[in-house]
Amino acid sequence: MTTSRRAAAPTGQGLASQVSVSGLPTVVEAVAAFGSRTLSPVELTDLVLERIERLDPLVEAYVDVYAEHARTQARQAEAAIGRGEALGPLHGVPVTLKDLFDVAGRPTMAGSAIREGHRAATDSEVTRRLRAAGAIILGKVVTHEFAFSVLSLPTRNPWNLAAAPGGSSGGSAAAVSAELCLASIGSDTGGSIRMPAGLTGLVGLKPTYGRVSKRGVVPLSWSLDHTGPITRTVADAAVVFSSIAGHDPADPCSINEPLSDCLGHLDGGVEGLRIGVPRNFFFDLVDPEVGDAVHAALDVLVDAGASLVEIEVPDVELAADCVSTVVGVEAAAVHQHDVRTTPQLYTASTRQEILAGELIAGTTYVNAQRVRQLVAEGFRSALSVVDVLATPTLPVTAPAYGAETTLLGGQEVGVLTALSRATAPANAVGLPALALPCGFASNGLPISLQFVGRPFDEATILRAGQAYQRHTHWHTFRPPLADCVSPPT
Amino acid sequence: MTTSRRAAAPTGQGLASQVSVSGLPTVVEAVAAFGSRTLSPVELTDLVLERIERLDPLVEAYVDVYAEHARTQARQAEAAIGRGEALGPLHGVPVTLKDLFDVAGRPTMAGSAIREGHRAATDSEVTRRLRAAGAIILGKVVTHEFAFSVLSLPTRNPWNLAAAPGGSSGGSAAAVSAELCLASIGSDTGGSIRMPAGLTGLVGLKPTYGRVSKRGVVPLSWSLDHTGPITRTVADAAVVFSSIAGHDPADPCSINEPLSDCLGHLDGGVEGLRIGVPRNFFFDLVDPEVGDAVHAALDVLVDAGASLVEIEVPDVELAADCVSTVVGVEAAAVHQHDVRTTPQLYTASTRQEILAGELIAGTTYVNAQRVRQLVAEGFRSALSVVDVLATPTLPVTAPAYGAETTLLGGQEVGVLTALSRATAPANAVGLPALALPCGFASNGLPISLQFVGRPFDEATILRAGQAYQRHTHWHTFRPPLADCVSPPT
Repeated sequence: MTTSRRAAAPTGQGLASQVSVSGLPTVVEAVAAFGSRTLSPVELTDLVLERIERLDPLVEAYVDVYAEHARTQARQAEAAIGRGEALGPLHGVPVTLKDLFDVAGRPTMAGSAIREGHRAATDSEVTRRLRAAGAIILGKVVTHEFAFSVLSLPTRNPWNLAAAPGGSSGGSAAAVSAELCLASIGSDTGGSIRMPAGLTGLVGLKPTYGRVSKRGVVPLSWSLDHTGPITRTVADAAVVFSSIAGHDPADPCSINEPLSDCLGHLDGGVEGLRIGVPRNFFFDLVDPEVGDAVHAALDVLVDAGASLVEIEVPDVELAADCVSTVVGVEAAAVHQHDVRTTPQLYTASTRQEILAGELIAGTTYVNAQRVRQLVAEGFRSALSVVDVLATPTLPVTAPAYGAETTLLGGQEVGVLTALSRATAPANAVGLPALALPCGFASNGLPISLQFVGRPFDEATILRAGQAYQRHTHWHTFRPPLADCVSPPT
Repeated sequence: MTTSRRAAAPTGQGLASQVSVSGLPTVVEAVAAFGSRTLSPVELTDLVLERIERLDPLVEAYVDVYAEHARTQARQAEAAIGRGEALGPLHGVPVTLKDLFDVAGRPTMAGSAIREGHRAATDSEVTRRLRAAGAIILGKVVTHEFAFSVLSLPTRNPWNLAAAPGGSSGGSAAAVSAELCLASIGSDTGGSIRMPAGLTGLVGLKPTYGRVSKRGVVPLSWSLDHTGPITRTVADAAVVFSSIAGHDPADPCSINEPLSDCLGHLDGGVEGLRIGVPRNFFFDLVDPEVGDAVHAALDVLVDAGASLVEIEVPDVELAADCVSTVVGVEAAAVHQHDVRTTPQLYTASTRQEILAGELIAGTTYVNAQRVRQLVAEGFRSALSVVDVLATPTLPVTAPAYGAETTLLGGQEVGVLTALSRATAPANAVGLPALALPCGFASNGLPISLQFVGRPFDEATILRAGQAYQRHTHWHTFRPPLADCVSPPT
């Protein structure tokens, strides 16, 4: 292993054209480098751990770093390479999990004081599949308290430490963006994967409802919760998604629908792809710079062979109210006991959300579920005409760090309202949605494009995203902080 | 056609060993007789219409008889036979629908004054499939108001006009039992197919949730509602079920699961079948005569080659509370508008149920839905050890006509509570369940056996029921009223 580590030294420099000497390879690059023995899992893990030590005090993405466990896994991964064993698709790749996912023998804190003393008995199904694919479980990253909102304190945005990373998977996004891990698994109830990915220049995939297991994941709202990856490239998202997706009979929300070959179709391009551009809702209230960047991205796709179809998405305006009602009731049911017995262990805003949810009538809840069917019918009609929909992921760039409001169309509104506006509809209807970077605003912060696809057709939105990234370079831009040599004093 | 009608005259007598001269053949017998040209659809339809005219004033099962429409359909069916056309499995068979199912151009009254002036634009999907199978749509039969309870007034029990037929599909059961149609389609939210079938000596099948379409059917509680047949024999239930079952993409509750070959396996017998006999809940509070008859039925099945396994069904005690909470909220949502604008058009008890449902909190509703998962887990564990469960369908025989209470284990309780006790669990968990006659109490009223099967495995419970009917004759007993020549004066 010493040999292998030494042998790999020049390789870090060999990757320099794609990543900084001090930075991390993408998942795809790392796996290729392990395969060609130009990089070793131990070397990569050591590099990641060194970066965490140096940069996480600035970003504050990590809740828990499993340094010794990671080094052990890395040595085992390296030994397997040495023995020439058949390797999983994530062999030796250091990844993190939002601190809602169980890792056997470790606490799942869910951003809450109430979980003090918790220790998971077994891995979540996603954790288990990551391990089965060969990934190194590097640690847990920050979630907003029980995924209830999008501040994700204390985590900061690597593109600007005075900006918010979004959430509730804020730790996942900050850790991947600052290159403190190669990929992270988040959860998404109203946009909590795509929103922080969008605010930090990353790729976030919310798969179809029921596609990736939620067993062993602390729920926010089970009929809206999804799990999925945050990565630097679309190709990385496809590899991680393929490793964790598929039916889990022990998860009542899991759906037994065959997986299509996302990886095989990834480089198929967009020749002939019909992209729907919503004329209602999604481009309303959008910052002009965001709208311009998304339209420029659509031009790139047209140049690559896609056609654009201006289209109505009927009733999508109703999605946000459905989501807030459903989250209100389901989260209140989850926390019913604890909020009565230990209210002081919740922050005031979360406690208020839970108690307000208890006041919602059963009829209001079931009517919200019925309106979701209506919204789903609207998406179905749109997606019967086009293959995917393209929208901004977010109407604005990252709000100020810690800010509870931001400007949306000139009005001051709550950050959750503004940031989930374009993402929550895909939760309401359960359709797969992909966020990917498509430019920068004049404030230097990333702008994000969103694709929404047909049920269980993650393959097409990933293929569209991959085509876009092959024609552009936004995903290769790195936050300056990722190259910091040491924390500023 | 005149020829055919004449030619068929001796045939009515040819069937006399199985059915009374003046009575009706079963579905299977009728289809066979049409095939051998010993009976004609026109002749059978005329016979049914004559019986309705003579006996329905006593039974009051019908809401609407489509006499002319039925005669037209019968002539078309007869002409098709004459042309030697390929015939559907219900070709020429006169059937009825509970008055919750839409028939194009006809009112769907749902037992409610509020539907005054209603006229359905299109057939319900079940109506459409019945027609596609060749059935003659003979008319609509009584439902308790919006299927809310089990009195089904004014319908009476053909076995004793002073007894209740049960409900909410009371009209379906009374019409089939008195031989005023060959089969009827009912709906079942807490037992509304099996309960009246059980109280009137018939077969009732509640299929797996999502197995038969509910499009074009007035809902009571969509997450518990099921549709299915009431017939005189298990073989008839299998034929009708096979004709109406299968995925309906336009029904959001429909599930796309392949149909197994119920008819092909129907006569497979019970050799080696493991029948679970619950040691908890289902035999508690059961009238001794009912318990004895069910145990005697189990002995018959053992003689036929089945084995009995005494088994626990964990948490089944919770099913009734789940069902009442879920029905309360979902029905309140359905009627929210009408109960405010025209409360006087509801009967007092239904109006009170709806308004009480509006007071149930969202958290209570979602907790009831979560407890249903727990109950389902209990059934799953039991059905992992045995192939089917066998229980009494009802703890008691038919209560007095119009009575709102009955005795259960020596205590006076509401009829709905008593009569749905053993049926509602299968609604809570969505499993297929079959009721079939297994004897008579000393009061002359029928006793019923219930099989509960694995998800989408209607084939096994039908096979078990068919084996039982091949070894017994309870299903050939007919209510004396079915042979009445004219109404008593």
